[in-house]
Amino acid sequence: MTEIAQPGSSEAPRPDPADGAGAAPVSGALVDSLGEVPVAFQDPGYRAAVVDLLGAIAYGEISAFDRLAEDARLAPTLADKLALGKMATVQFDHVEPLIARIAALGAEPMDAMGPFVKPFDVFHAKTAPSNWLEGLIKAYVGDGLAADFYREVAAFLDADTRDLIIASLVDAGHADFVVERVREEIERDPRIGGRLALWGRRLMGEALSQAQRVAAERDSLASLLAGGVDRPGLDLAALGRMFTRLTENHAQRMAELGLAS
Amino acid sequence: MTEIAQPGSSEAPRPDPADGAGAAPVSGALVDSLGEVPVAFQDPGYRAAVVDLLGAIAYGEISAFDRLAEDARLAPTLADKLALGKMATVQFDHVEPLIARIAALGAEPMDAMGPFVKPFDVFHAKTAPSNWLEGLIKAYVGDGLAADFYREVAAFLDADTRDLIIASLVDAGHADFVVERVREEIERDPRIGGRLALWGRRLMGEALSQAQRVAAERDSLASLLAGGVDRPGLDLAALGRMFTRLTENHAQRMAELGLAS
Repeated sequence: MTEIAQPGSSEAPRPDPADGAGAAPVSGALVDSLGEVPVAFQDPGYRAAVVDLLGAIAYGEISAFDRLAEDARLAPTLADKLALGKMATVQFDHVEPLIARIAALGAEPMDAMGPFVKPFDVFHAKTAPSNWLEGLIKAYVGDGLAADFYREVAAFLDADTRDLIIASLVDAGHADFVVERVREEIERDPRIGGRLALWGRRLMGEALSQAQRVAAERDSLASLLAGGVDRPGLDLAALGRMFTRLTENHAQRMAELGLAS
Repeated sequence: MTEIAQPGSSEAPRPDPADGAGAAPVSGALVDSLGEVPVAFQDPGYRAAVVDLLGAIAYGEISAFDRLAEDARLAPTLADKLALGKMATVQFDHVEPLIARIAALGAEPMDAMGPFVKPFDVFHAKTAPSNWLEGLIKAYVGDGLAADFYREVAAFLDADTRDLIIASLVDAGHADFVVERVREEIERDPRIGGRLALWGRRLMGEALSQAQRVAAERDSLASLLAGGVDRPGLDLAALGRMFTRLTENHAQRMAELGLAS
């Protein structure tokens, strides 16, 4: 990989729109192990897109924390409540490294998260679970879908950003808890399976609809997938295959829960 | 300190009521650095009381997490929301070591927390903040009061339990954030001071009223303060001084917020 040496400044400066044409100053935190700034960040468009993506992921984690903490109140037992609370705190713990990276990229983390508050809040408002099982399924299916999507996008990013994103997708093994609890309940009362399968489809539909809206409004995110100077991009056919993979993984998760997708 | 050697078993057994007269088997986790079980735990009454206390603290942390996560939704900015979310997760992270210790003492953690669900839930229901500032003050005043109380009680316990409780009271320095935010708001609009001072008094009143109910219903907790074989106890006068200290610390916190107590 070709890299151009550029010493980082010790402070994280605000992005300067007037500086769009050249390489904007970047923080020391961006310098890689060789003391060099990855060439991708010489492109202010790429930097802005990464800030956008990290802002989206960070707010996504905050809103997931928020909802998991709320859904924990539907828990039938203290042990269930604890398990969901643990899932919530694991999500929240991912936020700090993400916003530290946004600051290192010279952006204001709260500003970077701002554009994503509404899409996530709308998604959660439209998919408020009406009972404990729906909340569990939402946590499992929603986190899984988000993680798949970010992992796909991360493949097109510089190594450091990719590693940071992958680290923020660790779920602390609570997926097993959800699968076990949902299967137990379906075994006890198989009639609920149909309604819960419908719920899973609705979650997928709302997630896609919000993702589409974000992609339409945020050119930067779309441009990440289109590639750049030293990064490969996706053509329309490849984009289609990506969505096929996301859908297949979703179906796989529904099957693990004992539900038809 | 006098100690009687007793090798611990490797598993945490359920307490056996029939075994009440002698030293019940205790887990290996209870053995101290000299490979001995502190003499206090030879007394099944003491052990039951410690389980009760740890159950109360653990559920207190879960319910604080719950409420802080809910109050975070009232936050006027994303930065405020993050700060409150962080306070919530710090509280939640204290739960695991507490329930591990309850299990090591041979009790079922969910059963141990059970009796304290209602008092804490009633307290929170009666003191649901109607706005962001009330939520902040509740977090600060409520946590402070709980921490003071547990610290007082911890002084009467064996060293290991005491250390565990003290560790679970660490607040990760978010008190400074609350003090700063509340003072800012009062500076901006001094008229709110009177209403917020009233709010602080109400929090203290409700906390005392729930604590009193718990003390009346749970003999074990009251007996902790009364002392035992190798532990000092509190007489009525000393108990009075303890409540004076709690009240003084509360007044001190209100003053730090810029409010009359």
